[in-house]
Amino acid sequence: MIASTLPETWMARALKLAERGRYTTDPNPRVGCVLVKDERVVGEGWHERAGEPHAEIHALRAAGESTRGATAYVTLEPCAHQGRTGPCALALVEAGVASVVVAMQDPNPQVAGRGIALLRDAGLEVTVGVLEDEALALNPGFVMRMSHGRPFVRLKMAMSLDGRTAMSSGESQWITGPQARREVQRLRARASAILTGVESIIFDNARLTVRAEQLALPDGETIAARQPLRVVVDSRLRLPQAAACLRESGRTLVATLAEHDVERRERLAEAGAEVVTMPAGHDGRVDLDALLKHLAEAEQANEVLLETGATLAGAMLEANLIDEMQLFVAPTLLGGEARPLFALPGLSLMAQQKGLEILDIRAVGQDWRITARPRRHTVAES
Amino acid sequence: MIASTLPETWMARALKLAERGRYTTDPNPRVGCVLVKDERVVGEGWHERAGEPHAEIHALRAAGESTRGATAYVTLEPCAHQGRTGPCALALVEAGVASVVVAMQDPNPQVAGRGIALLRDAGLEVTVGVLEDEALALNPGFVMRMSHGRPFVRLKMAMSLDGRTAMSSGESQWITGPQARREVQRLRARASAILTGVESIIFDNARLTVRAEQLALPDGETIAARQPLRVVVDSRLRLPQAAACLRESGRTLVATLAEHDVERRERLAEAGAEVVTMPAGHDGRVDLDALLKHLAEAEQANEVLLETGATLAGAMLEANLIDEMQLFVAPTLLGGEARPLFALPGLSLMAQQKGLEILDIRAVGQDWRITARPRRHTVAES
Repeated sequence: MIASTLPETWMARALKLAERGRYTTDPNPRVGCVLVKDERVVGEGWHERAGEPHAEIHALRAAGESTRGATAYVTLEPCAHQGRTGPCALALVEAGVASVVVAMQDPNPQVAGRGIALLRDAGLEVTVGVLEDEALALNPGFVMRMSHGRPFVRLKMAMSLDGRTAMSSGESQWITGPQARREVQRLRARASAILTGVESIIFDNARLTVRAEQLALPDGETIAARQPLRVVVDSRLRLPQAAACLRESGRTLVATLAEHDVERRERLAEAGAEVVTMPAGHDGRVDLDALLKHLAEAEQANEVLLETGATLAGAMLEANLIDEMQLFVAPTLLGGEARPLFALPGLSLMAQQKGLEILDIRAVGQDWRITARPRRHTVAES
Repeated sequence: MIASTLPETWMARALKLAERGRYTTDPNPRVGCVLVKDERVVGEGWHERAGEPHAEIHALRAAGESTRGATAYVTLEPCAHQGRTGPCALALVEAGVASVVVAMQDPNPQVAGRGIALLRDAGLEVTVGVLEDEALALNPGFVMRMSHGRPFVRLKMAMSLDGRTAMSSGESQWITGPQARREVQRLRARASAILTGVESIIFDNARLTVRAEQLALPDGETIAARQPLRVVVDSRLRLPQAAACLRESGRTLVATLAEHDVERRERLAEAGAEVVTMPAGHDGRVDLDALLKHLAEAEQANEVLLETGATLAGAMLEANLIDEMQLFVAPTLLGGEARPLFALPGLSLMAQQKGLEILDIRAVGQDWRITARPRRHTVAES
């Protein structure tokens, strides 16, 4: 280990450790911790799974007697509440840690600052904000849920270079190649929930599951043991009882309106679905904003992966509910009759176009992945 | 100048020189020449303009007395025919050049090898094929015209990320930003001709000209003095006499069918157009293959820039007449009602999709430029 006095160096290590929990901490945030003494790492840890110890506890245990006088680098403000292993802030104090460097405050405005206050009251030196942007990017869903009461929504689409997702018949299998499909599996695996429209289920009969063998990750089996919640927007309650997703492990939520009769709900419940009633939006369909709030509150959903067709994708975009897009672009043309990416029926003037910010373009096998986010999308408005 | 014995190093320099003629040699090829003696450049030159000396002559003149025993690196086989300054191969012999390295043979099968034979017969050592791919890429249009009797067709389109070129109303101004538009001006400037459909003229009243001030090149005024030929596909002879392109400097060719009456042709001729009659293709419209052959034969067109809408672009693609695509992608969404890139009415199954090979993706200001070429497009079939 090369010695270094830059706090960013140790925090970068802590962020790296935190990323190991990418697929497993849900609904908790990904957190990493590094304990440094005399310019040397004496202990490190990361949060692996809800119900198991937090990152700080792992790092303290690994350091043993060396914690006294050490500096702790933590990617998220240590908690001050009584958890399964006690408040982490208190554990740091009791272990004799001298100073704590925190990348970001707890994003929950109700609790933010309490862990830091506890540390300062106990006489520890606390620095906040080292690699804060990177720490925020590590947990976009947790941050969104805590600060705005809704999940972070990531749209995934596979498209041809001329912006088409399927033939007009609905035929869409294998637009993109195996590497792109592996990336989609990984996007599913990190999501708390996968959101789709009933039309997508009717056309594709998609299972919307994480398949261990397709992840191509060493701990694929463990990751796939947690299936993200499947959420089907189904205003008219048309989901077939025979839908493949209802036979998979994990839960399937069907979001519909109040007017549907009890009998249809019961039949779907028998088939394995959980039917939830949502208010109607201005268009008479399931209110998407209310649905997302429900997923945050009742399901603790951090990151939602939106995998759907042009209608629901367009409605989500119009409602400013898409935070990130991952477009997998295949080097092929499907022509003007094929299905579009977004139905945006209200858009008829160039002045109304939906501006995007492109964050990244990279090759994924024979395909390309474009990461973008909508412009002028202010989270505060949502 | 760092000494080097690698022939590729000198040839790379010759290719660099040849590129200086990118916008000016039309209809001649871009050619560069470097004369090397004792590991030192003693003269160099490039072909600048049709009617002016070839690259070899410039290089010989620059070398003066030092040509004796030198090696000439030329990007294209020296000519053996009587030009304005005599055959270049003979000039090299008479100057006492000892050996000649040629990147590629003359692509015209009628004359290929004659220059090389002349040099060898005179006792010079000749090497052929150094950086041949690069030399071929320098003159895609000249090579295509000489070897296949039609121009190289480069499609340019400005599109939104969801594959749309305009709103359904036809409104399309400023999808892409100023840097992308500058690149389009440069694509026009290097083209022998710009091909469009009459619908594009009717909707946009595009001038299809090279504007010196928009090129942002030091010799912009000189370049814009040569306007590429404007070619309008107009099967039903609907081009308005008031079309802006007819009032610009340079020529406008209108390709139509035989059945139109003399009076309409005469009115368009009075307005400044040159009307040419083409055979009808299987769809009853102007035969695009015949038109391209006409442009190669009658107009010596090397590179044709296709700037048009979905109908003509789709027809050109279906006919396997597009060699390269430059898609300028703006980070914006226009929605499913907006105009598509390619009308491909016959395409209804995924198996019929048009595969592309993506050669390059790069940022151009706020936009992205994707360079691609159709797959399974064998030039020999066209």
